[in-house]
Amino acid sequence: MIRLKFKPVEFKNNKLIVIDQTKLPAKLEYIELKNVNAVCRAIKKLVVRGAPLLGIIAGYGVVVGLINKKFNSFESLYKEFKKIKEKIGKTRPTAYNLFYALDRMERCLITNKEKKSEEIIKILKREADNIYKEDLEISYKIGLNGSKLIKNGTRALTHCNAGGLATSGLGTALSVFFIAKTQNKKFEVFVDETRPLLQGARLTTWELMQWGIKTTLITDNMAGYTIKTRGINIIITGADRIALNGDTANKIGTYSLAVLAKYHKIPFYIAAPITTFDFSLRRGSEIPIEEREASELKKFNGKMIAPEKVNVFNPAFDITPGELITGIITEYGIIKPPYKKNIEELKRKINE
Amino acid sequence: MIRLKFKPVEFKNNKLIVIDQTKLPAKLEYIELKNVNAVCRAIKKLVVRGAPLLGIIAGYGVVVGLINKKFNSFESLYKEFKKIKEKIGKTRPTAYNLFYALDRMERCLITNKEKKSEEIIKILKREADNIYKEDLEISYKIGLNGSKLIKNGTRALTHCNAGGLATSGLGTALSVFFIAKTQNKKFEVFVDETRPLLQGARLTTWELMQWGIKTTLITDNMAGYTIKTRGINIIITGADRIALNGDTANKIGTYSLAVLAKYHKIPFYIAAPITTFDFSLRRGSEIPIEEREASELKKFNGKMIAPEKVNVFNPAFDITPGELITGIITEYGIIKPPYKKNIEELKRKINE
Repeated sequence: MIRLKFKPVEFKNNKLIVIDQTKLPAKLEYIELKNVNAVCRAIKKLVVRGAPLLGIIAGYGVVVGLINKKFNSFESLYKEFKKIKEKIGKTRPTAYNLFYALDRMERCLITNKEKKSEEIIKILKREADNIYKEDLEISYKIGLNGSKLIKNGTRALTHCNAGGLATSGLGTALSVFFIAKTQNKKFEVFVDETRPLLQGARLTTWELMQWGIKTTLITDNMAGYTIKTRGINIIITGADRIALNGDTANKIGTYSLAVLAKYHKIPFYIAAPITTFDFSLRRGSEIPIEEREASELKKFNGKMIAPEKVNVFNPAFDITPGELITGIITEYGIIKPPYKKNIEELKRKINE
Repeated sequence: MIRLKFKPVEFKNNKLIVIDQTKLPAKLEYIELKNVNAVCRAIKKLVVRGAPLLGIIAGYGVVVGLINKKFNSFESLYKEFKKIKEKIGKTRPTAYNLFYALDRMERCLITNKEKKSEEIIKILKREADNIYKEDLEISYKIGLNGSKLIKNGTRALTHCNAGGLATSGLGTALSVFFIAKTQNKKFEVFVDETRPLLQGARLTTWELMQWGIKTTLITDNMAGYTIKTRGINIIITGADRIALNGDTANKIGTYSLAVLAKYHKIPFYIAAPITTFDFSLRRGSEIPIEEREASELKKFNGKMIAPEKVNVFNPAFDITPGELITGIITEYGIIKPPYKKNIEELKRKINE
């Protein structure tokens, strides 16, 4: 389908190989996760991170734990599976994708209980491959649909890391740029560093550079001046959750960018898979916003950068109203306003 | 006139006492600069920094070098003065205020050449006091004029550090808050951390807290969401240079704030002394913008936070167009649009 420039995860010759993300951006290092304990350690130590990637790792983690082992009965295989499931499930207790993948593997196992153990393990491996391939296919389609927005001379701005490292390799907003690059378009991308955790500086710049895309890092507060003086002509970010009216929760700072886009009369796009839509929410104000620890702003690498007792406001996300969003790039195409009508229409189409 | 809550510089009982700003915000430490070498070291090591403060320190630095010394003739006094002037002048070769103050001290010295040495040194001390007092008075008047904008219930946002630490103790934008606090108004101030050098996080929060003002630190990219959800109703920043049409150069990020203010229909003010106006400039596009080292964005406390080879755009300032500025708070009052007419009128009034 597409040749990835880096592979956050790969299962090849019965080996589970991942990028050690704790070494980025200084060093690209692939390591093998040889057994379930190694898989669990890698998840806990953030060697692998990002919701979709964790789902994929969970699937392959099960395979790593079962492959090359002999079982006398389905019961003994299932007992071993349950041990593995419990171990992996404990690593990051709030990671939904982890449980989704483990439950899916379990359903697959039970469905095939009448088969021989070796056969079941082969089927489980194919199921893990499916989790991987489905993620890659969705990302690819998002990228392909969004790539129509990228022309020769495009100067894009993005925020945070809606990229490949958290997924099978392409991501959402960054997939748009990666696919456009395979189409030989000449464009460049400016990247907000994205305080406080600097995902833009650390990860997004690195990913874009792996694909040979011209990349420029700025601080978040430079966005307005960069749009005005460097001719930015499109902004594309990812999304964490989208309401029926198009209101979008995404990394803090996204809302400011959308306002800047409107003032400068340039388009502002969100890129996200259909699973990001929460059809139960009528509007963004119903989305709860996580507030994170004050220490994220007061300390940097253990050093205090603000008075110890200063009050801090540290929301992890903000809500961008649908009316500031030009379009939402999904694997089914680009959804345009009016969002309520068009999102409900898409929902109907998917459910058919 | 006003009781300062912290004194970046004080000359008292023939002693020059300064805050060691390298220790902030962790610790408030006053140290004595006992001789000219100590003064020079303090300037070089950024124990004292900020253009107006450096001018004041230069004036008192001369006094420290001459006081308690005997001179047989004006010539020997002048010779010693010139040695001191050269030493202090070498510390930060681009600091205009340093030379302004040293030249002013020299003119004062020469004007009084007929007097006895002890008498001249007393006069020089009074001249250094004048440099200090003039700065304090301008800051106080800016604060007093701006304080009319602060009401009970005001929730202000500020950027970078337009405060007392770079001056005699009040500053410009922060003086507005300090004076409003002495008027017992109940208000609070949100502070952008101000990447890349974090002057907001390190200095502005500290200053506001010294005055007992309710202070909340945010990252720069939180400004839009904070304005919208926390009811910010005024933004006030300082200025580095102002053109005749009101276009204002200030710390990078100011322009984005002005756009956010317009979108949210809240007032956006600049606070600056009349010396910040450059009457030779018709518009902001004539102001050169300094671009600083890429390492400011790629490294933090010596640790890499981005790929080593990533391209960086690092402008130190941006230009906010006059049409986004509600008013400019000066020691002569608040200048309102139309700026060209009103700034030229003020210029005439001052020159009369």
